[in-house]
Amino acid sequence: MKNTFGQSVAITLFGESHGEAIGVVIDGLCPGLTVDNEFIKAQLTKRRPSTLADTKRQEKDNYKIISGVFEGKTTGAPLTILIPNEDTRSSDYQRGLPRPSHADYTASVKYHGYEDYRGGGHFSGRITAALVAAGGIIIPALKGLGITLGTHILECAGVCDKEFTSPEAEIELIKDKPFPTINNVDDKMLEAIDKARLEGDSVGGILESAVCGMPAGVGEPWFDSVEGIISHALFSVGGVKGVEFGSGFKLAKMKGSEANDQFEIKDGRVVTKTNHSGGINGGITNSMPIIVRCAVKPTPSIAKPQASLDLNEMQEKTLEIKGRHDPAIVRRASVVVDSVLAIAVADMLASRYGTDVFLKGIN
Amino acid sequence: MKNTFGQSVAITLFGESHGEAIGVVIDGLCPGLTVDNEFIKAQLTKRRPSTLADTKRQEKDNYKIISGVFEGKTTGAPLTILIPNEDTRSSDYQRGLPRPSHADYTASVKYHGYEDYRGGGHFSGRITAALVAAGGIIIPALKGLGITLGTHILECAGVCDKEFTSPEAEIELIKDKPFPTINNVDDKMLEAIDKARLEGDSVGGILESAVCGMPAGVGEPWFDSVEGIISHALFSVGGVKGVEFGSGFKLAKMKGSEANDQFEIKDGRVVTKTNHSGGINGGITNSMPIIVRCAVKPTPSIAKPQASLDLNEMQEKTLEIKGRHDPAIVRRASVVVDSVLAIAVADMLASRYGTDVFLKGIN
Amino acid sequence: MKNTFGQSVAITLFGESHGEAIGVVIDGLCPGLTVDNEFIKAQLTKRRPSTLADTKRQEKDNYKIISGVFEGKTTGAPLTILIPNEDTRSSDYQRGLPRPSHADYTASVKYHGYEDYRGGGHFSGRITAALVAAGGIIIPALKGLGITLGTHILECAGVCDKEFTSPEAEIELIKDKPFPTINNVDDKMLEAIDKARLEGDSVGGILESAVCGMPAGVGEPWFDSVEGIISHALFSVGGVKGVEFGSGFKLAKMKGSEANDQFEIKDGRVVTKTNHSGGINGGITNSMPIIVRCAVKPTPSIAKPQASLDLNEMQEKTLEIKGRHDPAIVRRASVVVDSVLAIAVADMLASRYGTDVFLKGIN
Amino acid sequence: MKNTFGQSVAITLFGESHGEAIGVVIDGLCPGLTVDNEFIKAQLTKRRPSTLADTKRQEKDNYKIISGVFEGKTTGAPLTILIPNEDTRSSDYQRGLPRPSHADYTASVKYHGYEDYRGGGHFSGRITAALVAAGGIIIPALKGLGITLGTHILECAGVCDKEFTSPEAEIELIKDKPFPTINNVDDKMLEAIDKARLEGDSVGGILESAVCGMPAGVGEPWFDSVEGIISHALFSVGGVKGVEFGSGFKLAKMKGSEANDQFEIKDGRVVTKTNHSGGINGGITNSMPIIVRCAVKPTPSIAKPQASLDLNEMQEKTLEIKGRHDPAIVRRASVVVDSVLAIAVADMLASRYGTDVFLKGIN
Repeated sequence: MKNTFGQSVAITLFGESHGEAIGVVIDGLCPGLTVDNEFIKAQLTKRRPSTLADTKRQEKDNYKIISGVFEGKTTGAPLTILIPNEDTRSSDYQRGLPRPSHADYTASVKYHGYEDYRGGGHFSGRITAALVAAGGIIIPALKGLGITLGTHILECAGVCDKEFTSPEAEIELIKDKPFPTINNVDDKMLEAIDKARLEGDSVGGILESAVCGMPAGVGEPWFDSVEGIISHALFSVGGVKGVEFGSGFKLAKMKGSEANDQFEIKDGRVVTKTNHSGGINGGITNSMPIIVRCAVKPTPSIAKPQASLDLNEMQEKTLEIKGRHDPAIVRRASVVVDSVLAIAVADMLASRYGTDVFLKGIN
Repeated sequence: MKNTFGQSVAITLFGESHGEAIGVVIDGLCPGLTVDNEFIKAQLTKRRPSTLADTKRQEKDNYKIISGVFEGKTTGAPLTILIPNEDTRSSDYQRGLPRPSHADYTASVKYHGYEDYRGGGHFSGRITAALVAAGGIIIPALKGLGITLGTHILECAGVCDKEFTSPEAEIELIKDKPFPTINNVDDKMLEAIDKARLEGDSVGGILESAVCGMPAGVGEPWFDSVEGIISHALFSVGGVKGVEFGSGFKLAKMKGSEANDQFEIKDGRVVTKTNHSGGINGGITNSMPIIVRCAVKPTPSIAKPQASLDLNEMQEKTLEIKGRHDPAIVRRASVVVDSVLAIAVADMLASRYGTDVFLKGIN
Repeated sequence: MKNTFGQSVAITLFGESHGEAIGVVIDGLCPGLTVDNEFIKAQLTKRRPSTLADTKRQEKDNYKIISGVFEGKTTGAPLTILIPNEDTRSSDYQRGLPRPSHADYTASVKYHGYEDYRGGGHFSGRITAALVAAGGIIIPALKGLGITLGTHILECAGVCDKEFTSPEAEIELIKDKPFPTINNVDDKMLEAIDKARLEGDSVGGILESAVCGMPAGVGEPWFDSVEGIISHALFSVGGVKGVEFGSGFKLAKMKGSEANDQFEIKDGRVVTKTNHSGGINGGITNSMPIIVRCAVKPTPSIAKPQASLDLNEMQEKTLEIKGRHDPAIVRRASVVVDSVLAIAVADMLASRYGTDVFLKGIN
Repeated sequence: MKNTFGQSVAITLFGESHGEAIGVVIDGLCPGLTVDNEFIKAQLTKRRPSTLADTKRQEKDNYKIISGVFEGKTTGAPLTILIPNEDTRSSDYQRGLPRPSHADYTASVKYHGYEDYRGGGHFSGRITAALVAAGGIIIPALKGLGITLGTHILECAGVCDKEFTSPEAEIELIKDKPFPTINNVDDKMLEAIDKARLEGDSVGGILESAVCGMPAGVGEPWFDSVEGIISHALFSVGGVKGVEFGSGFKLAKMKGSEANDQFEIKDGRVVTKTNHSGGINGGITNSMPIIVRCAVKPTPSIAKPQASLDLNEMQEKTLEIKGRHDPAIVRRASVVVDSVLAIAVADMLASRYGTDVFLKGIN
């Protein structure tokens, strides 16, 4: 399905970095949802470059909703959002000299040289603005069901934040931060990122997300496990090279007696005393917060010279990347990850409870 | 799609731990592939309990292919494999007392108490025998295209193996080992596992896999990235709680200048000097080995008493798990992971090159 | 998706005419549904040859449910039904001499000669027994929601039945008839069929089906219209070469003022005075009965000599078909069509109202 | 999947009749295809109202390709086409007074009154302009593989054209006709349509299409039969209420000896002497022309007063439809049907032969 994701609520992405516009179609969305343009704008602002850690390219993200909304509410028909590209500088890019760890080379093989290479074309992080706009529609719909989510920068450039311990409260805490950390380590992270930038280099990081308020019983055994669906969606975010749930890779070092989440009853509800499972057992939600972490690689665009190839001549050639790039993508990726999570969760809810779940509630 | 995975080559899983049989339907498989029963049996043997680290349940896995094969070769019609359950002991299981970190509780919510609870029912690791049988058909088909794959136990119970450095040779090295490690640390791992077993406990681990010989240009941008497809499939394997590609979570600590895989030409082919990307850029293969690691949690079935609930009475109750279980699932999971990888890779190849790719080759 | 149909309730077909068994996996089925074996058997009996109009091959259809049912009720996990083939006579079939208007030639091109050619292999009408068994599970589930359906033989061998006028009552009338006609024209049809049989020939017919009790608002605009979904499913039934809804092809000759279904209120409910639309407007149900007709071609297996080819020698050659065949498939197809309709309708309901719709009802 | 159709080549439709724009995303399209804007324009012109038989609404269809094309050729990334709505007159439409045999009532139930009701909203035939634009990209790609297709008006308002007898030549004959008939009965049809128009009424018709040059072996057994895929797609075209292949409903009246397509060898190729099967056996192409006919109902918008309902008051109320409408939709639908056929065929070819089939050819 390539550029479409989801069964009940499905989104389709399109556009290139230096094309006229990028966009997204959201299909299967429940009718009657209020479109909160202030919230969409706020989300897009979060994704936009604003700190030293970010690219200099300045897109205003003047999105337009061209279908699926009528009198301020979703209609149930496909909702299409267009975001024009207004600040492109294509002369920075050359065909046939692939940037290491970018998609330039793989795209040229897959598309036989017909791809739009400018600014990474369809592979550009630019397209994530459309994911964020889609999230801007869906996140409030989830909130209407009592489901909240948030992402903070757990690690970046060697600086660490604390892990979620009370996700519901911590989501509230970070939700308006432009550089979301729980322990307010953003200044230290920015400093470390800027150091890398001045060296002509870039850094990676880890994003940690939580989804709170999920009902138990969502997801499927085997292939459409909550982990399977969410990881599938998250790996579409450029730079994500690892996804783990609950205690994730740390579980490899634990014993069963430590890792198992024992049950208790709290306020009449079944909960677990710990949450090493990240809210998911056997692929299905257990009503505890879904906890997921993404490893984000350093931005592959760096100023340092690198060994590349002239693909036309098939000979080695040194590359110096121009263009305007982010020395660390994690901050901007955090809002993208929130949006992708919202999309995946909305799809699972609509599959389980029907297409009108956001109007009718979970029953 | 729940129990079906794949677009061009699609597999459908069915069965319960204590039902009459489990099985798999493989649809969309290229006709004319030789079915190598010796190989299928060898793969099933690898998955079967054989060491102290494994459960005492002994299933013979007398599989039967009941459709899709004619005169020893695949026909192109759905290939169905049945594996009878012959050594079940249902009295070990009780309804309504969920085992921590198992699917018992989530299944009871999702299926409203109608699920077959015996031995974990449809959530049981038993069903992975069907995945392994499917892999037994598909792995040789991949080999016919020059694609080999293998999985070793990178870490278990605190004992570590080395990471892949020459995956092609190392796959060859481990391929017949019942407890696959590159550095022959299997005895030390088994010892550590047995120690946990004697304590009534269990341990987790990390599996590392490589797929060699993939052509460049396979996979899709955004949602059907190779990472997205493979992780989706791998998270269906019970106990997998993290998946990373290439240098994975380590990338979070690296600089771009360290993490980028610079290009060179070797024997006339485009390769990268390093493989931190795990063979995938922008979601698309670059012809370097695909490297993927799975974090496997400790088996949740442990002998120690645990806090559970009587779901009928809605009160807390201590649980002592009986039944026959694996103190470490990693060894047996390694062959399951190989099979799942083979399935996912076969699907991506058939989507890219057409349904007859295994007969006609990659062009 | 080839041999899998449906999004929320999905069925996967497998098996060959002369293989060990055929079968079906029903995935996504609501838990808690009672499995009525008497009903399943009765449906399979209806499909079995019993009149002069039918083949002499006698399969007992000793089906077995090997997964997805526990203590007499569906569990929600994939429900697998196996039906052994017990009365095969493979010597009647030859490879490489394709029967006109059968799938022999197209299969040999598609599968490069690796197909199981015996008795039509995977293309055989034999496989429809699995569809009927699946329908035997699903039809009662629909009934639980107040949805009934039935199919009668509108035309066969030049003899015509009347069209549905009061479908709800007429479904009741025909439901236990082995050769379902409203006007009791079965004897005349059988006579006409037998005449063709004695001439070594075969005849076709038209099946008319109704689905009553559908709620309004089911289906999707554009591609997943109720017509699109149902026709997609019905064309899988061998021999169906035309599908029409409501007044169908007759609408081509009507004026808008005749064809339009004007509204009225009856017993407080919105209904239409006529039902030329067959219960569907804009692809979405309007609560009137869904009316659908299938054109079924004459059985292509006839005793008369026909011009075929020796595919190995690539030369023309006369074929005389042996084997045991149906001079008219319509009677047996009627129960298959009921089953396929039930499957398609169940899928649409579960997509709209959630996976538990059969437990929770339509709301 | 609602507004998305196709597995390998997938199109997603969006937009409303009176919204800002309608459009389509074509995903999975082979890179390197030349975009022939003259052809796209010519196709859109064919669909545009131009005769007395058509609506007075005049849209210029100033489409824009906003992604997926670079330097005049497809890139392989999603190709998005936007078509602005420029001649809307929303005051003609009222909420809550559903037009008989339109989607107004069913949409209001499905979308709970949140749908954009103006001009039929997302259900409007206006959206087919996007299908035609997509066809304008894909039809030339098929031609590059030697596959041609065309549709003529077999019957309209009681006037009949002849059926295809030499489809390849007849496609050539009709291809530039604004009102395509083989026997030049367009004037008679127009006259008959105009008569209905003057009476405030509308008429239906039958479209007959042929696809020539298809290789044998495309399509799938059972659910993804060529008939299943094509009918699924065709029923998305508003007003289509019947679809038949080859001799279709006439087969119901034929004997096997008449209906069977006997084989012969012609110019070294396997062909059949007749084509009652419409180029498809067992769901798979046999290399003969695919012949398919669509029954199109009379346009439901008529000037005569009709019985409707005031949905807010839930009482019967007479409706007089204003707005600008087509007394016969068949002429305009013919180019839509061509486009839909092209989309479905392209998808089946890419699934069978791989995503690059249009670059690499069929092998």
